[in-house]
Amino acid sequence: MLRQLSAILPIRANRRGLHEFTPEVLNFVAESGIGEGLLTIFCRHTSASLLIQENAAPAAARDLEAYFERLAPEGGRYEHDDEGPDDMPAHLRSALTATQLSIPIINGGLALGTWQGIYLFEHRRQPHQREIVLHLVGE
Amino acid sequence: MLRQLSAILPIRANRRGLHEFTPEVLNFVAESGIGEGLLTIFCRHTSASLLIQENAAPAAARDLEAYFERLAPEGGRYEHDDEGPDDMPAHLRSALTATQLSIPIINGGLALGTWQGIYLFEHRRQPHQREIVLHLVGE
Amino acid sequence: MLRQLSAILPIRANRRGLHEFTPEVLNFVAESGIGEGLLTIFCRHTSASLLIQENAAPAAARDLEAYFERLAPEGGRYEHDDEGPDDMPAHLRSALTATQLSIPIINGGLALGTWQGIYLFEHRRQPHQREIVLHLVGE
Repeated sequence: MLRQLSAILPIRANRRGLHEFTPEVLNFVAESGIGEGLLTIFCRHTSASLLIQENAAPAAARDLEAYFERLAPEGGRYEHDDEGPDDMPAHLRSALTATQLSIPIINGGLALGTWQGIYLFEHRRQPHQREIVLHLVGE
Repeated sequence: MLRQLSAILPIRANRRGLHEFTPEVLNFVAESGIGEGLLTIFCRHTSASLLIQENAAPAAARDLEAYFERLAPEGGRYEHDDEGPDDMPAHLRSALTATQLSIPIINGGLALGTWQGIYLFEHRRQPHQREIVLHLVGE
Repeated sequence: MLRQLSAILPIRANRRGLHEFTPEVLNFVAESGIGEGLLTIFCRHTSASLLIQENAAPAAARDLEAYFERLAPEGGRYEHDDEGPDDMPAHLRSALTATQLSIPIINGGLALGTWQGIYLFEHRRQPHQREIVLHLVGE
């Protein structure tokens, strides 16, 4: 019979950019005892987001960070800047990536491809404590 | 025991830009009687999309709208323009944001962060009646 | 009572760009016998992605492909290029679109709008065999 569980996962982002948390997600799935199902990851922030990306090449992560800094730059024409010059670009980079990801669970593991890792994409310059909600339904 | 329900939510978009509908989603969840679960929001259109964003600062919403108008501009080099100059940019802006969002339900409420609101992002200039599908699984 | 099933769907992408696979998804749903539920589509790659877009106008698909080629161009300033000049742009285009989509099932069919089709967005130049994971929960 199908059942569900959820948890809040705190993630410390000490710097802007990509922070992999695939191991923490795998732990949650393993401890649940659920072998087949659907895992949902939800980011409770509007200046940090989620991304599934290549986890083998550090240069790819650096290119990705640099690209989004050019695509939604600080110093752009923004009306909203009460919280600093990195705030509005953070909202834009969040809008361009994902606030939520769902990943099927097969044979007790995430159905990720060989090179896929799960990342928190921190868009603010200051260190932040972020909250990710995990929800799992399955059996 | 887990159960599910779904509904179609009509949303009137009188102008281009962000239209918050967090209260309508909260109503649907409250009336379902489901306290723990997963809510999915699906946009049945290719020229409007979904976004979770900052709901406290109106200037942030204006910056966000202006940014996407620059990123996928009218007057670009588009082959497809049968439906007007705002049609192809609308498809591009939809592709860059979200067609679907899933949000965990915890203690009878959405697991949104403090500043997160749920928005329909209307990309056409003319007023449109849009349809959002809501699906909820939980108990 | 709710139940679930999943499958791996192979997709042959013979060229860069959009490849519709709505019929394959509809087949999976029809064969499941599930009339109400939630279908999740997950792409197991970081250089191909998913998109729901207009499926009536071929020109719209061409514009969309051309737009993403300009937005995340080959020949950009990328550090990561071991796998060829089309590799890093492929990761960027994936990050800008979707790795996963969930679509409600209503009355035995996908709750897509009239003009919505489901696409694999292949970002590499060489032909690739891609794997899509389908997960369905419902009754």
